[in-house]
Amino acid sequence: MTSTQKLLSLRAVLKEAGVEGFIIPRADEYQGEYVPASAERLKWLTGFTGSAGFAIVLMDRAVVMSDGRYSIQIKQQVDATLFETADSTKTSAAEWLSIHAKGQTIGLDSRLHTPREVKALQDKGVRIKILDKNPLDAAWSDRPSPPSAMVEAFPLQYAGQTVQDKLDEIAAVLTEKKGTAFIMALPDSIAWTLNIRSSDIPHIPVALSYAIAHADGTMDWFIHEKRLSQNVIQSFGNRVSIHAPQDLEGALAKLKGRVLVDERRTSLWFCERLKAAGIETMDTKDPSIPLKAKKNRAEQNAMRAAHVRDGVGIVKFLKWFSAESLKGTLTEMDVESKLEEFRRVAPEYRDSSFDTIAGFGPHGAIVHYRATPQSNARIEKGNLLLLDSGAQYADGTTDITRTLAVGQPSEAMKEHYTLVLKGHIALASARFPQGTTGAQVDMLARTPLWQKNLDYAHGTGHGVGCYLSVHEEATSFSPRGLDPVEAGMIISNEPGFYQEGAYGIRLENLVLAFEDGVCPYTGKTMLAFETITLAPFDKNCIKEDMLTEDEKFWLAQYHKRVYAEISPHLDKDTADWLLDSQF
Amino acid sequence: MTSTQKLLSLRAVLKEAGVEGFIIPRADEYQGEYVPASAERLKWLTGFTGSAGFAIVLMDRAVVMSDGRYSIQIKQQVDATLFETADSTKTSAAEWLSIHAKGQTIGLDSRLHTPREVKALQDKGVRIKILDKNPLDAAWSDRPSPPSAMVEAFPLQYAGQTVQDKLDEIAAVLTEKKGTAFIMALPDSIAWTLNIRSSDIPHIPVALSYAIAHADGTMDWFIHEKRLSQNVIQSFGNRVSIHAPQDLEGALAKLKGRVLVDERRTSLWFCERLKAAGIETMDTKDPSIPLKAKKNRAEQNAMRAAHVRDGVGIVKFLKWFSAESLKGTLTEMDVESKLEEFRRVAPEYRDSSFDTIAGFGPHGAIVHYRATPQSNARIEKGNLLLLDSGAQYADGTTDITRTLAVGQPSEAMKEHYTLVLKGHIALASARFPQGTTGAQVDMLARTPLWQKNLDYAHGTGHGVGCYLSVHEEATSFSPRGLDPVEAGMIISNEPGFYQEGAYGIRLENLVLAFEDGVCPYTGKTMLAFETITLAPFDKNCIKEDMLTEDEKFWLAQYHKRVYAEISPHLDKDTADWLLDSQF
Repeated sequence: MTSTQKLLSLRAVLKEAGVEGFIIPRADEYQGEYVPASAERLKWLTGFTGSAGFAIVLMDRAVVMSDGRYSIQIKQQVDATLFETADSTKTSAAEWLSIHAKGQTIGLDSRLHTPREVKALQDKGVRIKILDKNPLDAAWSDRPSPPSAMVEAFPLQYAGQTVQDKLDEIAAVLTEKKGTAFIMALPDSIAWTLNIRSSDIPHIPVALSYAIAHADGTMDWFIHEKRLSQNVIQSFGNRVSIHAPQDLEGALAKLKGRVLVDERRTSLWFCERLKAAGIETMDTKDPSIPLKAKKNRAEQNAMRAAHVRDGVGIVKFLKWFSAESLKGTLTEMDVESKLEEFRRVAPEYRDSSFDTIAGFGPHGAIVHYRATPQSNARIEKGNLLLLDSGAQYADGTTDITRTLAVGQPSEAMKEHYTLVLKGHIALASARFPQGTTGAQVDMLARTPLWQKNLDYAHGTGHGVGCYLSVHEEATSFSPRGLDPVEAGMIISNEPGFYQEGAYGIRLENLVLAFEDGVCPYTGKTMLAFETITLAPFDKNCIKEDMLTEDEKFWLAQYHKRVYAEISPHLDKDTADWLLDSQF
Repeated sequence: MTSTQKLLSLRAVLKEAGVEGFIIPRADEYQGEYVPASAERLKWLTGFTGSAGFAIVLMDRAVVMSDGRYSIQIKQQVDATLFETADSTKTSAAEWLSIHAKGQTIGLDSRLHTPREVKALQDKGVRIKILDKNPLDAAWSDRPSPPSAMVEAFPLQYAGQTVQDKLDEIAAVLTEKKGTAFIMALPDSIAWTLNIRSSDIPHIPVALSYAIAHADGTMDWFIHEKRLSQNVIQSFGNRVSIHAPQDLEGALAKLKGRVLVDERRTSLWFCERLKAAGIETMDTKDPSIPLKAKKNRAEQNAMRAAHVRDGVGIVKFLKWFSAESLKGTLTEMDVESKLEEFRRVAPEYRDSSFDTIAGFGPHGAIVHYRATPQSNARIEKGNLLLLDSGAQYADGTTDITRTLAVGQPSEAMKEHYTLVLKGHIALASARFPQGTTGAQVDMLARTPLWQKNLDYAHGTGHGVGCYLSVHEEATSFSPRGLDPVEAGMIISNEPGFYQEGAYGIRLENLVLAFEDGVCPYTGKTMLAFETITLAPFDKNCIKEDMLTEDEKFWLAQYHKRVYAEISPHLDKDTADWLLDSQF
């Protein structure tokens, strides 16, 4: 089927359904960052493969929209004779519709939108009609099957808490909020609660499925039982009942009392079904999110072990790169595959935790760059490589960025690198009372750059899961991070600086917040960070005279720790190289 | 009348009024920090003179409550046979009443409480009856007359904005909020809006009065006309009508449309009168507060001039103190009066801006210490004097704290002093984008102390008025400062450290936020601070090796500026002393 045929066929179905337009989001029914091939509706219709965006199809025109980072790609992938393109950060869907579809009725698949999204459209006057069936799915004849990978248990030695305990904690929240049940619609919430992992989508080891948590501490899980091994089922005791996915709708209709739904993170479809059955609902943030964000001792140790293993791969890569990069023959994609090669040798390696960003020179200044065969730059002397990557191991998730000089960096590069490093160290060595927010901590990382009128247009840090999503909710280190930092949170520390058209710098480690005594002058519990990522910073990029004594001390101690933890796993040559790379 | 007679007489009036108890707050009908003698009801009844607190009188018992800083004073001043005493931060009025007056009806004078306060009592189940007349006033036979000082114009050269302009700005807010009028009940809001000053109460140059701002840009002001000079009246043009205070109630009843009331800062009495007249009200923050917080160019220059003048007095005092303090004969109260003597010589001097805190040694660790004839400590070698003071000049308000070593300070004192100084410098030299909150900035001042497990149990900074209240609302530098810092705000920068029973350290300058260009990497306007307080820090207290090069540079530049601005106003001896005191 050509794109023209797909559009024709879609419009015919829309006409029949009594609507004059339809929205096709990139999101699937799990509202996640990655979607399986069976849910790549936006790609099927428009050719656009970006990780965010949507299309709107009217009878006489259609548009594909995404944000600034995809402005070039969207034009390359989308047929301009069929689709306009636009920047969704400048014009929202609601704004575009209010101009081009005034008074028209727009169809939606309620499984692909949250109640909050739909409310935002309605608030701007868009007339919405929820369609029973997705009209695009009707036209999509060669649609792949949905994924159904085997589900494995996440061992208690890593999880540190039984499913029973977790269900009890969630039940306590339900009881406190006077709810009888909670719709658990996020796959990583289910994976955490049930101590299971799977591989339905790339990078995040979850099983795409839904569950209902009850206030009595039981759970109904809607997943094909054949996906589960006997030991997974046994680990649940009598707390979890397995149901076929098609039984979900019937189960919703039978719920009693007040049902809690996270209206920012759950499909509108659930609210509709509950409403149709006359069941009261209340909007509540998924209760597993704050529980999951605070890693227990076992999770902390599992994450530490994963980071030692990751550090070994990274150090081997860095040694290899330090020699190979000078030959002038490497490309960005060579770097990506070589780095994965060094990580993949570990038996615990499962996947990368996101698509590696290997941005050389000007590409490093594109925050969400991904090398393609067309863009794949050659690595040459006199510039910087920004390398942001991560892995999924059986016991934990990693996310690390190093910026590496190839040949001799310029004075400006070194100055910018050192300012970013100062911010990184300020955050890593922060110590503050309980109640301090992510926004307050963010300030520390940016202050050295602000002093020189520099900054970076992204947050300083996001939560990271334990063999789960590399972008997990915790407080965020950013001006919008209004939640307090709490002991057990693992968050990235990744200040940066981007000189458009020239180079990019980002220095990222993960930090684990822990309780560090009580301040006798206020009686408040103090928190501090343990850096769990273990890999050296490139000393060729550091201007030592810009560092304070305290900063030099932090750097020396960090590099000592890296050597002590990583060198036992290296051959002598590599260990010597690591020792030599110390600051 | 003895206290016993006063209580007897009050209880007789209460019985007649049909209530079983009565609350006597320290606040007067203007909800301000200082009250005139005619409103010292708490003092008249109980003898307690603290600046915060309240009494509750029941038929069979009575209590006086205040916070921890007055725990000793309250016991000294209050007759324990008549009144219990308690800590209001541990037990609230509502909690005390729910234990000791369960089911009883408690009387209130609605002029002395805000709607929010009364709501908080009612939310805790306290049964309230608003009394028409204050039963204490009925018993108070020798009550002083209310103040009625002359009202003077605050010249346009300092105010920088005409009354007409200010009324237009307020009217624009009313129109935006769909209000017809705003009840202006805060004397310093009226003083700012009408460009007037007076001396009804100590330390804050306001006229105790009320006003009504209208959406058409006019104002009704309720004040005895005989208090106003002709040039004050003329400055208003046809925008402001003067009415006798007793005409207020009638004027309220005649208002039309929706009337805005600041329910956190206005007496409940206003809401009652408006309700009785069937007038709709809406809670709105006093619109003059955010306008007043951002000083215009003229106000900034007036404040700068006041600070040069204040700096001259301070430097003269410091020179005098450096010699006199070593003699071992000075007391805290000598210091207070000598400091005022040096300030008072300026023809523009009007008043102190609050009661000076001169706390030597252990007294310095009491955050709100005030020397009394009983406590008045002798100043001797080997400890620190914490000196927090400020002045009201015809053109501006000052607030400065210096901590001064007498003889040789200990290593611990110097270390603590230097850590506080590092925090002070971090805040003073901060540079950050628009939108950054007071809570974020606060972080910078505390970080050096937090690193050593030290802290201080007060905010880092409050807004300061321009020849108005020394505690004026702006964003606050504190974990609770959720409003952004805005250009034109003048805020104190006063980190500290308090070693109980030993000494206290606080280092306070005022800073003026200003726009400092645009960051080309984010497009955001950047803000920075100009320190407007001009006086040296005590170099005997500074451990130079604890300062970074940037901190030493800031300190050297600041002391250079102090010398350049202050020395032209000094005799040669004093100028030489100042030069010698440089870092």
